[in-house]
Amino acid sequence: MASDPLQDQHIDVPALRDLLDGRYRDVRNRVRDNLVEHASILDEAETLSTDDYRDRVRDVVVELAGTGQTGYGLPKEYGGGGDIGASVAAFETSAFGDLSVLVKLGVQFGLFGGAVLQLGTERHHKKYMADITSGALLGCFAMTETGHGSNVQALGTYATYDKETQEFVLQTQDDSARKDYIGNAARHGTMAAVFAQLVVDGENHGVHALLAPLRDDKGKVVDGVRIEDCGHKHGLNGVDNGRIWFEGLRVPRENLLNKYADVDEDGTYHSPIDNPDRRFFTMLGTLVQGRVCVGGGAINASKVALKIAVTYGNRRRQFGPKDSETEIVLLDYGMHQRRLIPLIARTYALHFAQERVSADLHRIFSDVDGASERRRKALESRAAATKSLGTWAALDTIQRSREACGGAGYLSVNRFSALYDDVDVFTTFEGDNTVLLQLVAKGRLTDLAAEFNSLNQVDMVGYVAGLAVETVVERTQMRSLLERLRDAVPGRGGLSDEDAGLLDPDWHLSMLRWREDHLTSGAARRLKSGMDGGTAPEEVFSRVQPHIIAAARSHGERLFYEAFLTKVQNTPEGTNKRALGALCDLYALSLIEGDRAWFMEHGRLSGDRSKAVQAAVEELCRQLRPHAEDLVDAFGVPPELLRTELF
Amino acid sequence: MASDPLQDQHIDVPALRDLLDGRYRDVRNRVRDNLVEHASILDEAETLSTDDYRDRVRDVVVELAGTGQTGYGLPKEYGGGGDIGASVAAFETSAFGDLSVLVKLGVQFGLFGGAVLQLGTERHHKKYMADITSGALLGCFAMTETGHGSNVQALGTYATYDKETQEFVLQTQDDSARKDYIGNAARHGTMAAVFAQLVVDGENHGVHALLAPLRDDKGKVVDGVRIEDCGHKHGLNGVDNGRIWFEGLRVPRENLLNKYADVDEDGTYHSPIDNPDRRFFTMLGTLVQGRVCVGGGAINASKVALKIAVTYGNRRRQFGPKDSETEIVLLDYGMHQRRLIPLIARTYALHFAQERVSADLHRIFSDVDGASERRRKALESRAAATKSLGTWAALDTIQRSREACGGAGYLSVNRFSALYDDVDVFTTFEGDNTVLLQLVAKGRLTDLAAEFNSLNQVDMVGYVAGLAVETVVERTQMRSLLERLRDAVPGRGGLSDEDAGLLDPDWHLSMLRWREDHLTSGAARRLKSGMDGGTAPEEVFSRVQPHIIAAARSHGERLFYEAFLTKVQNTPEGTNKRALGALCDLYALSLIEGDRAWFMEHGRLSGDRSKAVQAAVEELCRQLRPHAEDLVDAFGVPPELLRTELF
Repeated sequence: MASDPLQDQHIDVPALRDLLDGRYRDVRNRVRDNLVEHASILDEAETLSTDDYRDRVRDVVVELAGTGQTGYGLPKEYGGGGDIGASVAAFETSAFGDLSVLVKLGVQFGLFGGAVLQLGTERHHKKYMADITSGALLGCFAMTETGHGSNVQALGTYATYDKETQEFVLQTQDDSARKDYIGNAARHGTMAAVFAQLVVDGENHGVHALLAPLRDDKGKVVDGVRIEDCGHKHGLNGVDNGRIWFEGLRVPRENLLNKYADVDEDGTYHSPIDNPDRRFFTMLGTLVQGRVCVGGGAINASKVALKIAVTYGNRRRQFGPKDSETEIVLLDYGMHQRRLIPLIARTYALHFAQERVSADLHRIFSDVDGASERRRKALESRAAATKSLGTWAALDTIQRSREACGGAGYLSVNRFSALYDDVDVFTTFEGDNTVLLQLVAKGRLTDLAAEFNSLNQVDMVGYVAGLAVETVVERTQMRSLLERLRDAVPGRGGLSDEDAGLLDPDWHLSMLRWREDHLTSGAARRLKSGMDGGTAPEEVFSRVQPHIIAAARSHGERLFYEAFLTKVQNTPEGTNKRALGALCDLYALSLIEGDRAWFMEHGRLSGDRSKAVQAAVEELCRQLRPHAEDLVDAFGVPPELLRTELF
Repeated sequence: MASDPLQDQHIDVPALRDLLDGRYRDVRNRVRDNLVEHASILDEAETLSTDDYRDRVRDVVVELAGTGQTGYGLPKEYGGGGDIGASVAAFETSAFGDLSVLVKLGVQFGLFGGAVLQLGTERHHKKYMADITSGALLGCFAMTETGHGSNVQALGTYATYDKETQEFVLQTQDDSARKDYIGNAARHGTMAAVFAQLVVDGENHGVHALLAPLRDDKGKVVDGVRIEDCGHKHGLNGVDNGRIWFEGLRVPRENLLNKYADVDEDGTYHSPIDNPDRRFFTMLGTLVQGRVCVGGGAINASKVALKIAVTYGNRRRQFGPKDSETEIVLLDYGMHQRRLIPLIARTYALHFAQERVSADLHRIFSDVDGASERRRKALESRAAATKSLGTWAALDTIQRSREACGGAGYLSVNRFSALYDDVDVFTTFEGDNTVLLQLVAKGRLTDLAAEFNSLNQVDMVGYVAGLAVETVVERTQMRSLLERLRDAVPGRGGLSDEDAGLLDPDWHLSMLRWREDHLTSGAARRLKSGMDGGTAPEEVFSRVQPHIIAAARSHGERLFYEAFLTKVQNTPEGTNKRALGALCDLYALSLIEGDRAWFMEHGRLSGDRSKAVQAAVEELCRQLRPHAEDLVDAFGVPPELLRTELF
């Protein structure tokens, strides 16, 4: 570990920035320019009244729509760009700016526009898509209810078909079924995609989406709808979240978004998908783009925080040798390096993981019919892992960055304040992180089987127990055995036994894979033995739940590491590659270090080897320290958006 | 672990609340009543303009002063209560309410009032204390500068004695020396205790405090002073933080707070403390009360969050067995128990740790002359540990509580938002947490020697290296050996080897002590060998810093556990004692679990034993789950202050 491959080297920052920007460099630069043009909103967010701030955010959203930045993912025939990957890149880059704008963009073009596009058919597209793309028609995505958040199948809004008038009657069952936290509802939305139980002739066909008017031309709420403001929130106060009650609102039959199910004039319900659960999860599957976007947004928001904290840490001085005039730069303190440099490594890993999931999304959704269900499910699993672990990581990165700037970090002018408060809810919306990790685990446990998608974790218990668990266990254990054999190579020359192979990607990968396989097969076994022992499924689930979450996390982290490693391997030789390689090593070793207790408990790490892992993490931090500012500069956060007084 | 000592038992909530309230129950209840009377400020904080909110906070502070709640710690002769312990209890209980009020109380009565009281003499007391106590004279504590936060000895404000006029001339050296983040400065303060380099006849005697006017009777800033608003902050926007420049302001000689040093009319400087460093740290030592208060405030703020999250988790349902009408209560999920119940245990531990440090403060400061320097330093160390680990824990508890309430937790009406944003800076002010932990470590490393107090960590390296390190090492290792012997008791009957003694307090304590001793002696050894090897002190310090911080943390956690254990042992037999005992076990096992990698690396925990620790944590969470709501009810947060829509 003693040799430093980066000594006296300089990172080529523009080249590294291009590498990070990737295929969509021009899109990202266009968004950067747009954000700089609207940079004043970062100041206005503090000074405007809530109403004015919301209107200002709306105006920016509509102006951005005018530049074409918001329509990359919408069809060309309606003024969009027809490029899903570009739309994700544009969205996540927007997270360098005001995050209320970001979220309002997501509500309008991703959720509302996406629902009309993905769940509707030509009749809806022709009527609405052009106005949605231009921002002339602002809409809501009315799914979540006060009493029904993660459990969407239990929604209490009803759309009952009235054959006489060929209308659906929308009714909120009780207060727990009011739509809640709905963006665009409190002030600007004139229409909503409403998720409701579809009842035809007394039969409930499950949750479907319909378009419903909310406000008339003059902005007055229509009869049959009641709206309440959600009020002040921890962050994102530029977004007008509201609650909606439907009180007998009638909408024409044609308002059913009928791609996956339709009701004929005479009240005949039909769907190309027979199984109601499968139909429901097919509809929900279209949400995956939202999750990909939210994860990417959080990861990019955390880059802003890290850029500020690392630059400050490289300038600010505090204490020093007695009788010396010059104090020591913060980043020269070991603890400060330990605090910030692994965060750079993790942010790079998440960036490349996000690039991968976004590319998968692009390929699968650009050619819907060609994508197998298995590939779609793999995408959903990857998106759930990246969104959940990426948003938690972002929140952690922002808070640590704030603390690394001391009291100055507490002043809103330095951006941490809004970044933290705005990103906070990213861990909850578009799928609560814990619930999403259960989805990931379920996919692993059932090997991406058809029932994969159900969010009801208790049902999973019986399902997994009913599977040929031995197959899962055997499959994973066989791999483990091979890994163990591969792992038993003798130490390389010149290195002590504890250090041997610490920087070997094969070792990193084998450790991460082994953990994942062991946790997954262990969870399957515990679920099965719990059920076999006659315990109630909910009790079995409750007890195994932390194990399941750990399995999901380990899966996600392995995917992230692989994405990072692949990127390093494909980078041309040179200082940038060496720097990325060191960051990638640091990421892997930080993961192993973070779970080293588990590895020791399972005989995969000796106490001495575990200490060597920690020493290697510290050494990598020291080696990367001179390059820290270059590494965050490569994120390409425009200086105009830093809005800081810190340097 | 299978037997559940709490099965079918009920906690006596009023008795437990009394136990938590302790000696100052009546004080705490009085504060609760006062807060309920001013509960509307929790709503107003969101709706008022910044100026109006600040004025409202000022009004509440002055009204509270009228009730006597704010003066418990000030001398009786000036309208106070003369009871330091009561003043800490009153302050920390105030954290159930609006935290801007809390911090403004701290600035006025703790910092400004405390400086005049502790650093001044009778001439200042007679002139100002009555008006300070009543809130008629609002003041600032002007220590921190933009470029000089933790390193107070490097301040760049100068107070130069002018013999001719018998005045001090206050001058801000440059912009990095402007006073920054000063509460009460931007709007309400009419006077400040200013910390400045005292220069007499060209000689700099180091940092001293002087009283300086800021505003005249009409609120106009006086000549020679320039003030700027710090602007919007992440939280605490009801406190008017500002920046102050002194531009030749002249104050009379008598304004020097002259308890520890004085300047005669003829310009002779004298002090009862010869050593300038020692003098400086004696003056700074009076700050300990502020740290005790801030720690207690954060701990109590986190009780509010925990009360809301646990109650919600005990009501809210989500998902459930298929075809069942009733969904499962969140707190019945294993992951939800894991998320929240260890936080209850830690909050109880911190409560009792805080009770202990507050009692020490009371005893030592109520009888100043009788307290040995050693006892004072032990208090400072304990206060630094409780403040730093307590404020970090509070922030973590609030965030986890918020996430446990999903989207609803994001609405400001449910209090998490303000709690998080307001508490955030508690980790930074009154001593940055990382710097405070270094102070703790230094105390351990030097065995509370005289130089203990210097915050300059680099100086410590040479100092520690110069000590008889072997003595420290031997002392700690001897204890370790004894612990090891005691630890080698055979497993108790009926329990497997892995489970034996898992709930034995002696085992908990021996583990925590061993870790502390090992980390401390290890750090000492590394500092010494680094210096002996000729490395520059700052480089040695940089490398050993994470080790030093870990040693400090382990010391604090051991103290907290002992405080909790002592409380349990002194509680009368019954369900409450059993519940506290289970919580105390959970706290200890959570600590061991959290650092189990370290224990395994150092041969104190086998892999199987480590797994057993985790299983015991889960089992304790399950046993405590039926009592969770009772345990948070005992915090005694008045329902009027919950301001929640969640239950």
